[in-house]
Amino acid sequence: MKERGILLVVSGFAGSGKGTLMKELLKRYDNYALSVSATTRSPRPGEINGVDYFFVTTENFENMVAKNELLEHAKYVSNYYGTPRGYVEEQLQAGKDVLLEIEIQGALIIKEKYPEALLLFVIPPSVQEVYGRLKKRGTETKEVIASRMRRAKEEAEMIGRYDYLIINDDLDTCVQTLHHVVMSAHCAVFRNYDTINKIKRQFVDFLEGE
Amino acid sequence: MKERGILLVVSGFAGSGKGTLMKELLKRYDNYALSVSATTRSPRPGEINGVDYFFVTTENFENMVAKNELLEHAKYVSNYYGTPRGYVEEQLQAGKDVLLEIEIQGALIIKEKYPEALLLFVIPPSVQEVYGRLKKRGTETKEVIASRMRRAKEEAEMIGRYDYLIINDDLDTCVQTLHHVVMSAHCAVFRNYDTINKIKRQFVDFLEGE
Repeated sequence: MKERGILLVVSGFAGSGKGTLMKELLKRYDNYALSVSATTRSPRPGEINGVDYFFVTTENFENMVAKNELLEHAKYVSNYYGTPRGYVEEQLQAGKDVLLEIEIQGALIIKEKYPEALLLFVIPPSVQEVYGRLKKRGTETKEVIASRMRRAKEEAEMIGRYDYLIINDDLDTCVQTLHHVVMSAHCAVFRNYDTINKIKRQFVDFLEGE
Repeated sequence: MKERGILLVVSGFAGSGKGTLMKELLKRYDNYALSVSATTRSPRPGEINGVDYFFVTTENFENMVAKNELLEHAKYVSNYYGTPRGYVEEQLQAGKDVLLEIEIQGALIIKEKYPEALLLFVIPPSVQEVYGRLKKRGTETKEVIASRMRRAKEEAEMIGRYDYLIINDDLDTCVQTLHHVVMSAHCAVFRNYDTINKIKRQFVDFLEGE
């Protein structure tokens, strides 16, 4: 039986580069799968159903909520977003390490449902860098940037609830570090009781055979 | 100030190859230092004081014990062996990740004194492999091998007290995995409160400056 995968929940300030990190992990290593969210918003040009999102109707979405098929969900503006339990479970069972990029409230709900999930928070090397990255996007007004900075300040108060903190100063190092965290978690003794029990039985058999 | 290093305590069955693993870690990465034990036994040809062991007199050793200068110590046959606290502390303070190869009783004593130390147990892929490696050494009698196997069986009962389990089936993979464990531990949130507090202060300063 293949060992169950690890659920890695990734949050971070706007502009922390966490999206790029996820993409790089998927590209470099074959043990990862990205959790795909369900949403009621319309697909944008180029977005593919089942890859970028599972695009569903509001009725479908509310049905999923009612049937407890979402690990967490939230409403932004007038659209629902949620994490389908089925997809995550399927990937974990197949032995894939599942990456789930999600904001803090969602991450803490996931941790309640999957206490063995790893919560990882990504920060840029400095607050100036957070500001700089938001400004560089060029798509947001000064007021939107200021509100994102205030939000990031509030988010910083929650980092203590996470398991790991990663500073994204260099993409390559940061991708490696994320990979270290997941690979290390696979070796935790509490995830290897089957192996330990197997070796104990082997010793008994071996010594009886002597 | 340099971040404090991590103390990695490594145990494993006789023949688990843990000595080779330590050597490879030291060779491949520059973040490690190997803890050097103190002993009252005489140096063997080629052994260097301060590298292989700190060779001390029984009087010196008993003095170290009395002054609480050893993290743990034990007597094998008629010789003392112990882990000097000073060397380990010095290396940790210098930011080095300290490797300490030690048997189970010693490892558990270290964990009491350094609760943040990582305890890692190395096993060969199978019990047959443990036996095979002991036999291959060619230096031990059949009776000695049998007694080591019985000892390994007892040791297997203690793996649950460790933090990590590593299966040494391939040296290269195994060295990488050990490195994953240490690098990952550096990112644990509880080891990064200074960074988190710094970023919180930066946000306050930044938003006051707006």
